[in-house]
Amino acid sequence: MATSWLSIPKQSPFSLANIPFGIISTLSSPSPRPAIAIGDYALDLFAFASSGGFSKLSSFTPHIDVFAQPTLNAFAALGRPVHRQVREYIQTILKSDTPFPELLQSNDTLRQSALIPRAEVTNHLPLKIGDYTDFYAGLNHAYNVGVLFRGPDDALQPNYKHLPVGYHGRASSVVVSGTPIRRPNGQILLNPAATPKLPTFSPCKKLDIELELAAFVCRGNSLGEPIPINEAEDHLFGLVLMNDWSARDIQAWEYVPLGPFNAKNFATTITPWVVLMDALEPFRARGLSADSADSLLPYLREQKAAESVYDIKLEFDLKTENGTVTKLSKTNATNLLWSFPQMVAHHTVTGCNLNTGDLLGSGTISGAEKGTLGSLLESSDGGKTPIKLADGEERVFLQDGDEAMLRGVCGKEGEYVGFGECVGKILPALKL
Amino acid sequence: MATSWLSIPKQSPFSLANIPFGIISTLSSPSPRPAIAIGDYALDLFAFASSGGFSKLSSFTPHIDVFAQPTLNAFAALGRPVHRQVREYIQTILKSDTPFPELLQSNDTLRQSALIPRAEVTNHLPLKIGDYTDFYAGLNHAYNVGVLFRGPDDALQPNYKHLPVGYHGRASSVVVSGTPIRRPNGQILLNPAATPKLPTFSPCKKLDIELELAAFVCRGNSLGEPIPINEAEDHLFGLVLMNDWSARDIQAWEYVPLGPFNAKNFATTITPWVVLMDALEPFRARGLSADSADSLLPYLREQKAAESVYDIKLEFDLKTENGTVTKLSKTNATNLLWSFPQMVAHHTVTGCNLNTGDLLGSGTISGAEKGTLGSLLESSDGGKTPIKLADGEERVFLQDGDEAMLRGVCGKEGEYVGFGECVGKILPALKL
Repeated sequence: MATSWLSIPKQSPFSLANIPFGIISTLSSPSPRPAIAIGDYALDLFAFASSGGFSKLSSFTPHIDVFAQPTLNAFAALGRPVHRQVREYIQTILKSDTPFPELLQSNDTLRQSALIPRAEVTNHLPLKIGDYTDFYAGLNHAYNVGVLFRGPDDALQPNYKHLPVGYHGRASSVVVSGTPIRRPNGQILLNPAATPKLPTFSPCKKLDIELELAAFVCRGNSLGEPIPINEAEDHLFGLVLMNDWSARDIQAWEYVPLGPFNAKNFATTITPWVVLMDALEPFRARGLSADSADSLLPYLREQKAAESVYDIKLEFDLKTENGTVTKLSKTNATNLLWSFPQMVAHHTVTGCNLNTGDLLGSGTISGAEKGTLGSLLESSDGGKTPIKLADGEERVFLQDGDEAMLRGVCGKEGEYVGFGECVGKILPALKL
Repeated sequence: MATSWLSIPKQSPFSLANIPFGIISTLSSPSPRPAIAIGDYALDLFAFASSGGFSKLSSFTPHIDVFAQPTLNAFAALGRPVHRQVREYIQTILKSDTPFPELLQSNDTLRQSALIPRAEVTNHLPLKIGDYTDFYAGLNHAYNVGVLFRGPDDALQPNYKHLPVGYHGRASSVVVSGTPIRRPNGQILLNPAATPKLPTFSPCKKLDIELELAAFVCRGNSLGEPIPINEAEDHLFGLVLMNDWSARDIQAWEYVPLGPFNAKNFATTITPWVVLMDALEPFRARGLSADSADSLLPYLREQKAAESVYDIKLEFDLKTENGTVTKLSKTNATNLLWSFPQMVAHHTVTGCNLNTGDLLGSGTISGAEKGTLGSLLESSDGGKTPIKLADGEERVFLQDGDEAMLRGVCGKEGEYVGFGECVGKILPALKL
């Protein structure tokens, strides 16, 4: 692996092998603009492009206005081949033996202005999201939750292994990591066994996380024109980590017959840096789907079915208000029954149109045993078994002041392709 | 009621009492731009504003750029008081004894260019839709469908009368009336009783309509700040008719446990002309909710609970390929258990943020008996009883070439406040 002339900590998720894209602003320059993350820095792509940084990539120079936009939508819409060229070019600029040191390395003024310590940077949503769809492709999660609600014999619905179950989510309340999360108020059933069932208006008492991956769409399709499974990857820009905050008590009361609504619509947090599909290519792995691929309907069968998901190590830490951090879960993104290309093919098989900036969530990713679970609902056996924290405190669901911290990374030290942190701290509910 | 110097057919849904807003283009001027509908004409508001048409409404002239936009979002975002002023001003300009004939009536050149026969106009989506939410507020529909699936004793879920059940819908595939609808392909269970349950990939065989109203949001709220019920009306721009096309066989297989997805995501049709809330004010009526208002949780209790919906006569006609038109349903928008302000209050009580351009569907509106039903699923008893058409043909669900025509109107001859037609013709499924 090439090294960089820039000092990059060996533990950084943003090694030279990564080059994820995001939107930043700074105190001195408050207009949101594109950047990449590299080690402890963000490279301001507006500044870099404005100073002729892309002059050696002549195929891209007609498009450099995409880096003068407040979102990555225009860049994403250029398509996979362009993302690949630009990422590789930026790697070339940053590597120790770059043939173009004058474009950044030896240009002290530009380095000063364009390479910004990430600690000084404010992150924004990387793309303007059109529609947000959340799938349910985490087989173990679906099974675990099914056992809690219906018992082991009937845990998975009959459709589960035939199609990627999904639902439309709320796009407006997707926020970037670090945004505080206000505990929602809503209707809950204090005593589900009582008759008649009379709801109470209350702050959510069962506030939970859901550890997910999510994909951004780079190019869409026209209404009425499905995306074939083997073209689906060309429509994906990159991945982020996602916390699909969930109010379990609101959900239990409201979700029949049309699915979760208020239980999910108050916030969904994503990481700010989009890891491009090309950066993930070396980490293709066998998911849970490969065995059953032959029995799938043809529109869901992938050419590379055996390696259609990614080997991404995932973690969930809980930080309480006194600063104690407890690692509650370690799992892996291979725990998915369905790949993102399968989700795209299924989503569009009716003719539904995707657009640049649409967000597709994987669903909660859990392993099969304790310590690998992607939600507190599962870790606490549906709220029945308290979870011990590092300082002896206990949790069933999230308390005010708790901070949920998700992390995900591929690869090895010095070459990590990571997502950074997906963080949100719980604020007390409004008194309504 | 005032009369107009313009000849307006007595049967027109677009009387001087209406003044609905939309987005048009014409062959000679293909840029989409705002307009109002009046009788058989559209008044091009870009042309009217550009020629000084709003010069006698000085409070609005700083904002006239909103009529140089390709959507109504900027106009909507100005808020209810501005919509009211502009609508009343346009009524003043159009009425027989207008004090300002020089602004349109006696300006022959402008009349020629700005008053365009609607037959020559192409309609576009009136607003750019952010998120689209569909509720389930049609009590009779929910009951009828519940009887079909669960029998009369268990027809309504326990939550139904406590909260407006709703789900997130697909915004990208909302289309304007007249757009052809491609029959979707998808997974269906040909024999639901067989074990194991093995789906077939097939064109939808149970394609249905859903007769709905929908509201556009004019002003949103910040994330974390609920909209109180008695402020909710200030956030509504106006109403349209909506056909929430539904693939019943795809829905039956996919919808557990997260709700309908592919069964709805291929298309939703709305009327092009937004009838402003002020135009509907004279038609406030008692809905189905008034009796139970006292038992509601306070955040859903309205000051004007007794008149929180609208007396809108609704119709559903089916036109088959040979030109035969059969009236299949006549109903009324009073058949709603929940009002749009209640939907807004419930949607945002968790802190969920609404934005200008968000679309809120009412859910299917049905009466209690045959001939008043808002879907074929209900009219055909779940597909069991064929429906006779005017020429002796029969239907259970929609066939290729069928055209569903929804209409809605308030008021009386010469003063109609109507929505026009919400139309879509079924194209054969793609061969995949």
